[in-house]
Amino acid sequence: MTDSYTDVLIIGAGPAGLMASLYLSELGVNHRIIDKLGTRALNGRADGFQVRTVEIWDSFNMAHLLENHGNHFREWVLWTGEKEISRQRVETSIGEEVSHKNTGTFHQGFIEASLISGIRKRGGTVERGIKATSMSISEADHPTAITVKHLHATEMDQWHVGAHFKHDDGTLESQKGTIDAFGDDPQDIVPSTNQQGTQETIHAKYVIGADGGRSWLRNELGFRMNGANTNSVWGVIDIIALTDFPDIRKICTILSSHGTVLIVPREHGFTRLYVQLPDEDPATESSSNNTTMLEKMLATAQQIFAPYSMDYKICDWWTVYKVGHRIADHFSYDNRIFLAGDAVHTHTPKGGQGMNVSQQDAYNLAWKIAGVLRGQLKPEVLSTYESERQPIAKELVDLDGALSDVLTSRSQVPESQVKDVYDRLRYFGSGTNAKYGPSPIVAEHVDKVATNIICGARLPNAYIYNLASGRRLASQSLLKSDGSWYLFVLAGDITSSQQLARVNGLGTYLSTLSHKFPHLSSRKMTQAFMRILLCAVSSDFKAHDLNSVYFPMDTVRGHDYNTVFGDQPDKGAYGRKLEHSIEAEGTHKLYGVDQQVGAMLLIRPDQTVAWKGSLDNVSGLGERLLNFMRVD
Amino acid sequence: MTDSYTDVLIIGAGPAGLMASLYLSELGVNHRIIDKLGTRALNGRADGFQVRTVEIWDSFNMAHLLENHGNHFREWVLWTGEKEISRQRVETSIGEEVSHKNTGTFHQGFIEASLISGIRKRGGTVERGIKATSMSISEADHPTAITVKHLHATEMDQWHVGAHFKHDDGTLESQKGTIDAFGDDPQDIVPSTNQQGTQETIHAKYVIGADGGRSWLRNELGFRMNGANTNSVWGVIDIIALTDFPDIRKICTILSSHGTVLIVPREHGFTRLYVQLPDEDPATESSSNNTTMLEKMLATAQQIFAPYSMDYKICDWWTVYKVGHRIADHFSYDNRIFLAGDAVHTHTPKGGQGMNVSQQDAYNLAWKIAGVLRGQLKPEVLSTYESERQPIAKELVDLDGALSDVLTSRSQVPESQVKDVYDRLRYFGSGTNAKYGPSPIVAEHVDKVATNIICGARLPNAYIYNLASGRRLASQSLLKSDGSWYLFVLAGDITSSQQLARVNGLGTYLSTLSHKFPHLSSRKMTQAFMRILLCAVSSDFKAHDLNSVYFPMDTVRGHDYNTVFGDQPDKGAYGRKLEHSIEAEGTHKLYGVDQQVGAMLLIRPDQTVAWKGSLDNVSGLGERLLNFMRVD
Ligand SMILES: Cc1cc2nc3c(=O)[nH]c(=O)nc-3n(C[C@H](O)[C@H](O)[C@H](O)COP(=O)(O)OP(=O)(O)OC[C@H]3O[C@@H](n4cnc5c(N)ncnc54)[C@H](O)[C@@H]3O)c2cc1C
Ligand SMILES: Cc1cc2nc3c(=O)[nH]c(=O)nc-3n(C[C@H](O)[C@H](O)[C@H](O)COP(=O)(O)OP(=O)(O)OC[C@H]3O[C@@H](n4cnc5c(N)ncnc54)[C@H](O)[C@@H]3O)c2cc1C
Repeated sequence: MTDSYTDVLIIGAGPAGLMASLYLSELGVNHRIIDKLGTRALNGRADGFQVRTVEIWDSFNMAHLLENHGNHFREWVLWTGEKEISRQRVETSIGEEVSHKNTGTFHQGFIEASLISGIRKRGGTVERGIKATSMSISEADHPTAITVKHLHATEMDQWHVGAHFKHDDGTLESQKGTIDAFGDDPQDIVPSTNQQGTQETIHAKYVIGADGGRSWLRNELGFRMNGANTNSVWGVIDIIALTDFPDIRKICTILSSHGTVLIVPREHGFTRLYVQLPDEDPATESSSNNTTMLEKMLATAQQIFAPYSMDYKICDWWTVYKVGHRIADHFSYDNRIFLAGDAVHTHTPKGGQGMNVSQQDAYNLAWKIAGVLRGQLKPEVLSTYESERQPIAKELVDLDGALSDVLTSRSQVPESQVKDVYDRLRYFGSGTNAKYGPSPIVAEHVDKVATNIICGARLPNAYIYNLASGRRLASQSLLKSDGSWYLFVLAGDITSSQQLARVNGLGTYLSTLSHKFPHLSSRKMTQAFMRILLCAVSSDFKAHDLNSVYFPMDTVRGHDYNTVFGDQPDKGAYGRKLEHSIEAEGTHKLYGVDQQVGAMLLIRPDQTVAWKGSLDNVSGLGERLLNFMRVD
Repeated sequence: MTDSYTDVLIIGAGPAGLMASLYLSELGVNHRIIDKLGTRALNGRADGFQVRTVEIWDSFNMAHLLENHGNHFREWVLWTGEKEISRQRVETSIGEEVSHKNTGTFHQGFIEASLISGIRKRGGTVERGIKATSMSISEADHPTAITVKHLHATEMDQWHVGAHFKHDDGTLESQKGTIDAFGDDPQDIVPSTNQQGTQETIHAKYVIGADGGRSWLRNELGFRMNGANTNSVWGVIDIIALTDFPDIRKICTILSSHGTVLIVPREHGFTRLYVQLPDEDPATESSSNNTTMLEKMLATAQQIFAPYSMDYKICDWWTVYKVGHRIADHFSYDNRIFLAGDAVHTHTPKGGQGMNVSQQDAYNLAWKIAGVLRGQLKPEVLSTYESERQPIAKELVDLDGALSDVLTSRSQVPESQVKDVYDRLRYFGSGTNAKYGPSPIVAEHVDKVATNIICGARLPNAYIYNLASGRRLASQSLLKSDGSWYLFVLAGDITSSQQLARVNGLGTYLSTLSHKFPHLSSRKMTQAFMRILLCAVSSDFKAHDLNSVYFPMDTVRGHDYNTVFGDQPDKGAYGRKLEHSIEAEGTHKLYGVDQQVGAMLLIRPDQTVAWKGSLDNVSGLGERLLNFMRVD
């Protein structure tokens, strides 16, 4: 038995744990991430990626992985019918109207492999084949002691692959599965260490339990899951569909009197079908390997698809599960142990939210722990994790219940109710639903400026023009997840000298801030804890006329050209014919900012608006910072 | 001395040689690529990537590397002035209106590293430290014998880095350089083999000389470069600019009475300056390491930039060169030895075309050699390499002369002449200029259909809607570089039963084609040599109503859902609100195709239109295929 010490221990390397490790790695926080399994996900499990999660990946410069892989679509189609199904409704699929990013479907293994590769690039590593087995809590400097066992390969659970080829005579031939393909990290098999078979006690300042739906840590803490299982049994299968159904490459909901099928078009020509199974025979966990369930699933799907054909030869994964909607009574213990992901909320996968909300939990948490560890943030900030994420989980579980009602209705619900639940899912997936309540890091009382901006919600995207390059950028894409807080100054119309003076007056105050708040500039040697972005109404001004706090100059690296923007492109000289030169709305209008007045927005390291105020309200800004920032 | 045999030997692993190897690797052609240097480019050299080259990379599924790295911009700005410069004109930068892809600047080493990684993924490899030293030609089955020397590390030329830090007192401290950063292949150092110091004779069926501006192979063949050097001397330098010049992150041409500067914004905050040096002192090749030239370059730039400041601390690369515009009298020898890239055309780098045209040469050539080697194409096809690429090179060299005239004019030319030459450059970079003349693979006499389509030019892009998924796609993105010829059937309005019958009649003929042309289906076991794409005017039809040649079904893999399209999205059911649902123009209109008539386009493996005809003209299609395809 050895003892070791770490600032943060993450238990579980699924989407939640990996996102926590990614962010902590980005921030250079000393931490470890362990998982009892020998590999990441190899096939199956979650598939849907919502736009809010793509935005988060973008903030780690990883969204291109999603954009270049996986399957993208743009339509959701509703089919219903008694004896024979027919197409009822086509809608734009998830997210387009609320984000500059797009949704898609991605194999969970690809997501995990990408996160692992992002962690590695930032100097971290995932330790596999290590199982947490017991816990004790003390008042020590590293108060939580987790005892883990380094497993022998033979002790580790195997990944249930389930891939097979179905021969003409119906016999199944096991296969390796083909959907898993990620260049650098094909399988991420556990490295053999000479620790196998030994025990280790890891003493941690903070522990994140991201250990999944049957969370060991949740049980240790004695937290309870509230909610219910239903009797509804579903099968899920990833196949190369052999069919004449015309919408097989679109997201579809099929409600028939024989039951319900959901279609999710996937990478490499695969299609995922969620099939509602007949009620009679509630599947048990063990039945997920039972091929009679597989036959039943296909037979049910074939009935529902009538008059269209449906069969397959190549299957990559399948399982059977029962529906449950449950949520933990607590998300954290004593602001030193936190639970995230499936460990605190379980629900059906059919809304395509599981992999997303799990990562979003971790994204909400990691920077808070880092800020407290660095002595920048007050420890009270940590209690906002539970107060912010539990209501979201509740909303998800409720929504999931509404979805299940619709999907198990055997086409007896009105179409408008179906559409309504899908609209809610879309909204949820966009992240615009998340409105965190008042706390040290979310203001309650604010100035009547930026009237379309809600404190506690993520900054809505707007397109702005970089003054230096003329390039059009998504405002949201500027908010990188590197632990920085941002002050976004909507400067208004600074071609007016009065407004310019006001903006530069604010600049004078801002340049004194790092004296008042010593931790403002302690993040990295070279980088301020708070970064300032400025956007004016037009681009007809010179960056050099601004207070240097907005356009800082380094004697070696020169100017940072990514801080000053306009709502509209530079009208510049004659001869211009740029495609976006007439924008329907500028950022000021979109955010509800008066061009003669301006506004400032204080934005957290998770792109959430913490506070807003008028350009003159420097005392309001100072007070807000005092709410959560340590000054000693 | 050992003897070895290969189908194709490529000499030189710059952009031209690597593109040839990439395409041959994709096609599984037995070949070798050698280079006398021990590394790829590490910094400096070419920087501009034109949209046509991005399209080509897209056809190898590699364009995302360009989109996610490098620097992108959207404006070209002209500054002129006698004593002090001022901004005169802003224009959209290169390409936007002619391509679905965008231009950018990329360090040549990144381009080479990406191509090398693409070659590796396709099973190929680059052999370094191998220098071609002598050649003989016989009538053998492998007629060209190239003797090479495997160099010791000490015998290899070193990469001239030139990176430095300029201290306040003006002293220069050598540095490693920071622009070079490509994950998987940081430097691609030559592997040490036990062959070092030995000689080898490589016997090849075909040889591609991509050995650069001082081409050894060109000299061996006795080809001459025609054209002239001028006395104009230029410096080029990659720096982190310390300046208050407002357009430093835009592409700029600055014409002043002190000379000319071109600004190219680069990756990682670097800026490249091309500086016209005073005439007096024609630099020699050796002066490129001479720091007095460096001082002269900076001093000249500072004069030209006045009243703005210009200085630097960090330099990544610099050199000095004389302008020359020259072109080889021959591009190939006996249809078995071919020269590509700088080996056959040299010109100034300031138009940003060198790295592009070099790759485009190789892209024109590789599939022809592969097709002949496989016995699919008649050997005569090989002579089209010279007949197609030499006129392009001539055009480039002429254009380069016109550019030099403008740039050395010391602001004495009218602005309209400056704009004109930049418009020509933009047009050249888009690839729309390339109109190959009549040959077995470019038709001269064609039906009066698809009136906007030019045989011998690359297929213009249009946006179309995938019938199965509803996704909007660039038509050009369907034309993958895998050696396939494409038959693009513009089906017209097939909601009319008469038009549908006509299209299906053509389908019946097409399904017999692989009997008439046995090599049509010999490319790979599973893939046809010619692929058929169909695009109708609307999406209001069922793929299953088409002749199965358009929507083929595989009993295991199911349908290929990437063959059937519409000009417009499916109007489908009610409730639709898709962003592109009202397209200004459909593909039929854009290509000049009558909706009641339709048309077919035969497209080469390099996206060039070979032939066009009406849907009834099956004999014309058959004759055209007989022109270049072997039937024995
Ligand atoms: C069989 C199955 C099918 C699913 N299908 C879908 C689907 O079709 N669509 C969909 O959207 N979602 C699906 N999901 C849900 C989705 O996979 C989860 O929402 C998502 O993985 C949650 O991420 P997480 O990180 O919270 O937990 P998990 O991904 O479950 O990760 C938890 C990790 O903790 C590790 N762990 C547990 N206990 C310990 C311990 N004591 N010590 C060390 N490590 C431990 C586990 O090995 C595991 O790797 C499915 C889940 C399962 C289990
Ligand atoms: C110093 C310099 C500066 C440049 N600056 C710019 C610029 O600023 N902007 C711009 O657009 N373009 C610039 N260029 C031009 C650009 O780099 C070329 O257009 C481009 O590299 C041409 O590609 P290529 O493959 O034809 O030739 P190259 O890239 O020159 O590749 C030829 C290769 O052949 C190898 N080789 C030569 N002889 C032998 C032999 N006998 N045996 C084996 N291998 C051999 C060489 O080692 C070399 O790697 C510059 C070129 C040079 C040399």
